Amino acid sequence: MNIKRNIYLEMTPLARARDLFLEKFADFRMTRTEKMPVPDAVGRILAQPVFARASAPGYHAAAMDGVAVLAENTYGAAEGRPKTLTIGEDAFYVNTGHILPDGCDAVIMIEQVDVHDEGRIDIEAPAFPWQHVRKMGEDIVATQLLFPQNHLVTPYCVGALIAGGIFHVPVKKRPLVVILPTGKEMANPESDPDTIKPGQIFESNSHMLGKMAEAAGGRYERWETTIDDLDLIKEAVKKAADGDADMVLVIGGSSAGSEDCTKQTFLDLGEIWVHGVTMMPGKPVILGKVRGKPAVGIPGYPVSAAMAFEQFVAPLICQTLGVPAPQREAVTVEPTRKIASRLGLDEFVRVKLGKVGNRFVASPLPRGAGTITSLTQADGIIRIPSSSEGILQNKPVTAELLRPLSAIQNTIVAVGSHDNALDILADELKSRYGDLTLSSSHVGSLGGLMAIKNGGCHLAGTHLLDTADGSYNVSYVKKHLPDIPVCLVTLMHRDQGLMVARGNPKRVKGVEDLGRDDIRFINRQAGSGTRILLDYKLAAVGMDPARIAGYESEEYTHMSVAVAVLGGVADVGLGIFAAARALDLDFIPMVTERYDLAIPLQYMDTDPIRHLLDVIESATFKNRVAELGGYHMEETGRRIVVNTA
Amino acid sequence: MNIKRNIYLEMTPLARARDLFLEKFADFRMTRTEKMPVPDAVGRILAQPVFARASAPGYHAAAMDGVAVLAENTYGAAEGRPKTLTIGEDAFYVNTGHILPDGCDAVIMIEQVDVHDEGRIDIEAPAFPWQHVRKMGEDIVATQLLFPQNHLVTPYCVGALIAGGIFHVPVKKRPLVVILPTGKEMANPESDPDTIKPGQIFESNSHMLGKMAEAAGGRYERWETTIDDLDLIKEAVKKAADGDADMVLVIGGSSAGSEDCTKQTFLDLGEIWVHGVTMMPGKPVILGKVRGKPAVGIPGYPVSAAMAFEQFVAPLICQTLGVPAPQREAVTVEPTRKIASRLGLDEFVRVKLGKVGNRFVASPLPRGAGTITSLTQADGIIRIPSSSEGILQNKPVTAELLRPLSAIQNTIVAVGSHDNALDILADELKSRYGDLTLSSSHVGSLGGLMAIKNGGCHLAGTHLLDTADGSYNVSYVKKHLPDIPVCLVTLMHRDQGLMVARGNPKRVKGVEDLGRDDIRFINRQAGSGTRILLDYKLAAVGMDPARIAGYESEEYTHMSVAVAVLGGVADVGLGIFAAARALDLDFIPMVTERYDLAIPLQYMDTDPIRHLLDVIESATFKNRVAELGGYHMEETGRRIVVNTA
Repeated sequence: MNIKRNIYLEMTPLARARDLFLEKFADFRMTRTEKMPVPDAVGRILAQPVFARASAPGYHAAAMDGVAVLAENTYGAAEGRPKTLTIGEDAFYVNTGHILPDGCDAVIMIEQVDVHDEGRIDIEAPAFPWQHVRKMGEDIVATQLLFPQNHLVTPYCVGALIAGGIFHVPVKKRPLVVILPTGKEMANPESDPDTIKPGQIFESNSHMLGKMAEAAGGRYERWETTIDDLDLIKEAVKKAADGDADMVLVIGGSSAGSEDCTKQTFLDLGEIWVHGVTMMPGKPVILGKVRGKPAVGIPGYPVSAAMAFEQFVAPLICQTLGVPAPQREAVTVEPTRKIASRLGLDEFVRVKLGKVGNRFVASPLPRGAGTITSLTQADGIIRIPSSSEGILQNKPVTAELLRPLSAIQNTIVAVGSHDNALDILADELKSRYGDLTLSSSHVGSLGGLMAIKNGGCHLAGTHLLDTADGSYNVSYVKKHLPDIPVCLVTLMHRDQGLMVARGNPKRVKGVEDLGRDDIRFINRQAGSGTRILLDYKLAAVGMDPARIAGYESEEYTHMSVAVAVLGGVADVGLGIFAAARALDLDFIPMVTERYDLAIPLQYMDTDPIRHLLDVIESATFKNRVAELGGYHMEETGRRIVVNTA
Repeated sequence: MNIKRNIYLEMTPLARARDLFLEKFADFRMTRTEKMPVPDAVGRILAQPVFARASAPGYHAAAMDGVAVLAENTYGAAEGRPKTLTIGEDAFYVNTGHILPDGCDAVIMIEQVDVHDEGRIDIEAPAFPWQHVRKMGEDIVATQLLFPQNHLVTPYCVGALIAGGIFHVPVKKRPLVVILPTGKEMANPESDPDTIKPGQIFESNSHMLGKMAEAAGGRYERWETTIDDLDLIKEAVKKAADGDADMVLVIGGSSAGSEDCTKQTFLDLGEIWVHGVTMMPGKPVILGKVRGKPAVGIPGYPVSAAMAFEQFVAPLICQTLGVPAPQREAVTVEPTRKIASRLGLDEFVRVKLGKVGNRFVASPLPRGAGTITSLTQADGIIRIPSSSEGILQNKPVTAELLRPLSAIQNTIVAVGSHDNALDILADELKSRYGDLTLSSSHVGSLGGLMAIKNGGCHLAGTHLLDTADGSYNVSYVKKHLPDIPVCLVTLMHRDQGLMVARGNPKRVKGVEDLGRDDIRFINRQAGSGTRILLDYKLAAVGMDPARIAGYESEEYTHMSVAVAVLGGVADVGLGIFAAARALDLDFIPMVTERYDLAIPLQYMDTDPIRHLLDVIESATFKNRVAELGGYHMEETGRRIVVNTA
């Protein structure tokens, strides 16, 4: 293995890299066209200007139901001095849209006509010429420009085109993006998830990028995964670039490691201008060309892949089609906590958003490039420019929206303790009220109460044991939120206990065993209810936490603790039964505790919270949670109001 | 023909009508599902919550290229006191993404490794447990909720689903909207536009609404047009409602005229709750049900059809799918002129938008329900509530956006005289600069100068003859815009003359003939350059405008004048050669005039205007305009600066 390699990238500033790349392909325009029936052209880009072939209306048309006349025949009619017209001679019944009979130039509304007998009518006011008439060409004049080239065809356009006598239009072909996944650890996503081998991951990036290419106006072909072999990758890239591809993406191997072949592939077949960009995620991107066609090396971490695509490939597809690159709606938000960032890098921080009171609050999601769920859970992206060391808590910044503003305004922001029942609650809420979303961030019970204090959420999940009297939550709310009236709504009671590997190989019986030399523990973060419970139990048996190996290793959710036990990172963790059961771990029960939602009274009467409470009290919700195991729903929905006078 | 009918509708307030309609179908939910490969599910709605089947990563993975170790083997290493590890024994080369070898719990970056010899390495710092390791489940834990039901699948979701071992998902079937066009005047849009008969129009609404149904998440079937016959329409509606349709739309015949069958159809087959809604366009809408399925009578005017669909059908499709109705981005705009509106009606005014200086200006488009081009040309819609009599010039109001804000910010707003060359200019601009749009409103030359004065546009097309000295534009700019430095850029010279029917049947020779008893004239609006030219020519021959029949009939564009002559509304009109030629009219030349773009100096140096000027001076633009006929491009691009010190 060659380890003498340059593993540092020469980073190009993001804006400069994009400008350079787009400039290199400024003349690379989609000139191939296809003629399509107008309705099928929706979403496509016109290749040529389109001129109307017919006028609309193509004749003088009645704009009202009534009687068509020649205006000058009606002159002299007045109230009390009616004029009589004869149907079929100088008056003709017409309905809206009908052609005006020859010799007529006006319509009298039927309401203003007095029917004398079957053949004659009286009118008591004159018509003026062209009243209630849609004149020929009022909407569209034959030969007029309907749409310029490069126009995006919308459903409205379909109406105008057909009205103008156009039934087929020439549109630009969609640029073909050939996507080549690479990497020997990639498993094919058609295989059974249960048969995936250790060390393998499902190759998902190519499918995601392909769909992003479609959204940008392109089309894609996903080619089979190539292992990290320079010759094989070169062969595939060459074949793609020599074929129909309009651009070639190679996923993975874009960095400078020993198995990273993309750079060499592009250098051997063409040239590169950029290797490494000052962006995070997405740093190790490669921009070049092969056989005159754009060639991009896409980093393998999924968030990096998505960001690199959005910064370089999507704008190039749009430029190729002659349309502006899409821009996301932006909104001013206030971060719920400080977010540090590295100088010299443009960082894309994924955030959850919600409107709490009259401000939009942004909670940062995990920042790792490998965390695709940080993108799918995100409502927006805050871009921290390379010149900044980060952004401050509560200091307004701009976020690009990934969901519509209205959806964010209809999001209930939950911050606090993690419980699997919150997922069920979110699902049931969305099932009943499709426009409402429950968005949960997991910072522990105390963190949730702090978020209420700082106006960062609508509610907080909390299970804080008062070790003095065995009560839950009330004393904590009184202490930490003395000025905020809060309703504690019981979500459920749940079993907490020790999670161990299936079969309990180390024969753990209780917290007394945590000090054993052969046992490695995995802990929850300080401020979480579970951590408080652990410390209480340790104190009760007189055990010094310093004796516990792994006491300082912290995870933020029950599921993370469970997976640490499952993966052998630890032998024991404290958590809820549902998490142990989900991953098929053994569970040693310790305590049944109350889990409440703390909701400031000011939100209790809002529509979203009322709907949420309805769901909580529904039989469906209770049954679904009970089925997870380890939950007790007898007191679900019970309310205690704290901090009112 | 039965003319004793109730032609007045019982109008229901818009908001109440919509709430009632949606409430009636609150339980009408899409329960039919289909299982799809994950990439094909993009844009669809999940029918069930989706839980991960695999963890991602499914193993502890190296997060850096380097050497995998057991952290405790490295303790004691320090700068100047290196520790030596043996490759293959207690150190293992790994690349990013590789599985951690058994017994390892940390990775040391390759940059921090000193290669002793092929088999041994030195390190000068200890590793801590789990450094540079992506722990199993860091992104996704098997069994965790990936997405709740009713979730919209995006390209990002594809990445998360496949990473979580999910390759197929259950999505809701798209509700089927069966669309039944009616009306005997409807021609089939597959026919040749040249063969359309007088009194016929192309049936375009069904195609437009079908595409709107798709955009809302539904699918559609367009059934053949039915003539206005109660039995035939009933038969079709019955067949649709008895069949697979999830909702039935009948287009046309929704009012209360003698040929309007929709109401009776619904009453005979089911029931109706609303006939007539306080909205404009879109008043005569019918809301009901047939065979338990939603049935909507859609008005036949295209803008009415679109508005009725957006207010009732699109929200119903979304409710059926369990997702929120789409909401358009809104922006605060200032109308360029007063817009009156009828009390008691919610009016949807289509407007062109642009950013002039630091405000968004809104120019209203034609308000007729029959003008589909008012929708396709619109950038936004201002909704004037039923409680308002209208909105005021320059008074900020909210507009819903039909195009992205960024596109509106890249729009050059032209207000002023109409000329066909502006269409060519718009097309050429869009061809070269896909992100720029030239948006023209036609209010005449003087109107354009007034728009500059009021900050309502970036430039004004103008051809104002100074009858004192025969010069163009300069004296008008000095008089009307004394405080605004303006650059007059010549777009072209053009021939103006009298347009008459092919063959000149009334043997018109010049303006002297306009006073003849057998001649009907069609005029341009006051303030237009063409009107000023006409009045000047009339004065020159000493003719009194009062002698001209039709002098008071005004149109706003050359093409409208031409179409009036073509359609026999008038015998003669004054206009440009290009308009006469487009409609194959005869043309009697009178004068060649200069047509300038008046551009305030403050905008001359902005990117959009510089690009526009580049296009104006290009050979392609000049040649294309010259080909229209009647244009002279010798002085195109010449600049005169007016009103500078």
